[in-house]
Amino acid sequence: MEQSYRPGLEGVIAAETAISFLDVEGEEIVIRGYNLLDLAQQKTYVDVLHLLVFGTLPDEKELAQLEHTLAEEGKVPDPIWNILKELPPTMHAMDRLRTAVSALGGFDPDVEDTSLEASQRKGMRAIARIATIVSNLHHVREGTEPLLPEVGKSFAENMLRMITRGTPSAEEIRAFDQSLIVYSEHEMPNSTFAARVIASTMADMYGALTGGVASLKGYLHGGANEAVMIMLQEAKTADQMESYILEKLRSKARIMGFGHRVYMKKMDPRAQLMKETLKTLIDSGKAPVRAQTWYDMCVIGERVMQREKGLYPNLDYYAAPVYDALNIPVELYTPIFFASRTAGLVAHIIEQHANNRLFRPRVLYTGPRGLKPSSN
Amino acid sequence: MEQSYRPGLEGVIAAETAISFLDVEGEEIVIRGYNLLDLAQQKTYVDVLHLLVFGTLPDEKELAQLEHTLAEEGKVPDPIWNILKELPPTMHAMDRLRTAVSALGGFDPDVEDTSLEASQRKGMRAIARIATIVSNLHHVREGTEPLLPEVGKSFAENMLRMITRGTPSAEEIRAFDQSLIVYSEHEMPNSTFAARVIASTMADMYGALTGGVASLKGYLHGGANEAVMIMLQEAKTADQMESYILEKLRSKARIMGFGHRVYMKKMDPRAQLMKETLKTLIDSGKAPVRAQTWYDMCVIGERVMQREKGLYPNLDYYAAPVYDALNIPVELYTPIFFASRTAGLVAHIIEQHANNRLFRPRVLYTGPRGLKPSSN
Repeated sequence: MEQSYRPGLEGVIAAETAISFLDVEGEEIVIRGYNLLDLAQQKTYVDVLHLLVFGTLPDEKELAQLEHTLAEEGKVPDPIWNILKELPPTMHAMDRLRTAVSALGGFDPDVEDTSLEASQRKGMRAIARIATIVSNLHHVREGTEPLLPEVGKSFAENMLRMITRGTPSAEEIRAFDQSLIVYSEHEMPNSTFAARVIASTMADMYGALTGGVASLKGYLHGGANEAVMIMLQEAKTADQMESYILEKLRSKARIMGFGHRVYMKKMDPRAQLMKETLKTLIDSGKAPVRAQTWYDMCVIGERVMQREKGLYPNLDYYAAPVYDALNIPVELYTPIFFASRTAGLVAHIIEQHANNRLFRPRVLYTGPRGLKPSSN
Repeated sequence: MEQSYRPGLEGVIAAETAISFLDVEGEEIVIRGYNLLDLAQQKTYVDVLHLLVFGTLPDEKELAQLEHTLAEEGKVPDPIWNILKELPPTMHAMDRLRTAVSALGGFDPDVEDTSLEASQRKGMRAIARIATIVSNLHHVREGTEPLLPEVGKSFAENMLRMITRGTPSAEEIRAFDQSLIVYSEHEMPNSTFAARVIASTMADMYGALTGGVASLKGYLHGGANEAVMIMLQEAKTADQMESYILEKLRSKARIMGFGHRVYMKKMDPRAQLMKETLKTLIDSGKAPVRAQTWYDMCVIGERVMQREKGLYPNLDYYAAPVYDALNIPVELYTPIFFASRTAGLVAHIIEQHANNRLFRPRVLYTGPRGLKPSSN
């Protein structure tokens, strides 16, 4: 009890982990020893997923086997679609996802088994099924039948195909895959912390993942990528971007996509990569015309915010226009973030269960004392 | 980062709160200035619920109004029942509850409004609906239609009536009501912490409550009350209780219902109250014959564990036989704990949103550094 109180546990070490670390001074996001940016440039999302959950990068055969498993396990049980159909179409996509992730626990034979092998099997099942659910949230809301993953196509291709119902190009698949990699894991953000706190009662993986969805919805966390796109759509053109931001700042409104608790004095390296990904997509000729407008606006916004507030863009700032360039509906941005992050959460839940200590902190009580109720 | 790492955040202050405080030295559980035991002896659950969420004990008129509101709002929307029917009957009751609580968010017009008034309205709706769902989990699993609360009956009477489908006596209603009071709030246990962590992204109340259900399921938290009953049923008789416990201790098995992170050297005052409640129920002649057996076994178990391990019983140890004496099925014990605790969680979520700081701690990284991926 002698430690001082730090609101939001800022700077407090909450767990030991061998999964990831933000080395702010070294400007490196470390994922099981690798630099996340190296992984994003040289590997696929499924490689990184294997690294996170099994601890090593897969060889070619392991990668092919894992892609196969994910496509096979991505067939979501029918009652889950029935449950989604019972939810009102006005319900936030993350709230529908949260309900479906919770329900998935009822359809996993390994749900109560916390052994390493069962947890890894369960993790693959959860990742595969959550990707299918996320990719169909808007279809189910519109009353159309869900599309399922196909064996022989990569995880990223399957998601993009299910989301857009089109035939994505290699350039589009690569851009989407890179976005999944940079969203996959990031040390101890709120959703990862929520999942580990829940897992520490020895609650099951689906419960911990459900808590993760609940957390990620908030606009101080995953909800930010959707807010960025809404901002770009409001500001409309590169000409208007500077005056739009200055007006927002004057009225003390929050500008989404800037600043980060941990990266305070540097640009989030993931934002830089997504900026390049957006440029590459535009240069390939595979992006809609408006993508160039978003790019120009983002560059202006970045300069204005740096000048006015000394703030740098975070990942969400450049991920949003990439998703728009891929013709992904805005309501799916945060769910896609979650689909990707499921890999990191699964790794953290397994690590928590393997070396568990119940999270049970104390409080600083600021209320009254010594009151007496009168009898009823 | 200069603070030392404390696994499970033991002894770390995670929040300021005016809601409750465990004064271990003073042997008092403080609820907004009152002693929880005074409240349990002199007030009803709905009084305490009002105290938690609105900040004051209600007068007679406010109490009657709140009972009326809760009975009215306890009518659960039909799609929630349809969703529960889609879940497999083998699914853990807490996992079915978690899914229903998540789905409830879609049926609350105030879901995205974090103002105090909207949050209090939402809180009453959530408490009322969760109580109805909890009280019908076993009926829906068995394929029978849910029973709803009736205006004019108290919250505790309605729950017990829905659960047992009988006409509970005044003594039974009082015993159940006292159990709800002692479960209603308890500073910063894991589920409350999980709910506040989630709420701190400005995620909605239903998301935070859903995370609370997920946490409470674990056997290191709410799941313990069910485990106590299973232990009593296994040990069978008072004659066998001592040898049963000694055998468990010899094989290093966990004895449920003993010890608590915060109360290490004293008996949980709530356990003492539930012990008296069980005795009163038995003495009233309203409990089944087996209740006396559970009571005798518990007294023996308490003595053996104190002698062998220096451990004291916690609330779950005496709440379990009280619930059995009220003919409540074991699968509902943890869900009932949650139904009661919803009041405390609602108060904490409102407090978190009113003075928010995002929870985002750091980690102690124990993995490798400097690895390089080979290109695909």
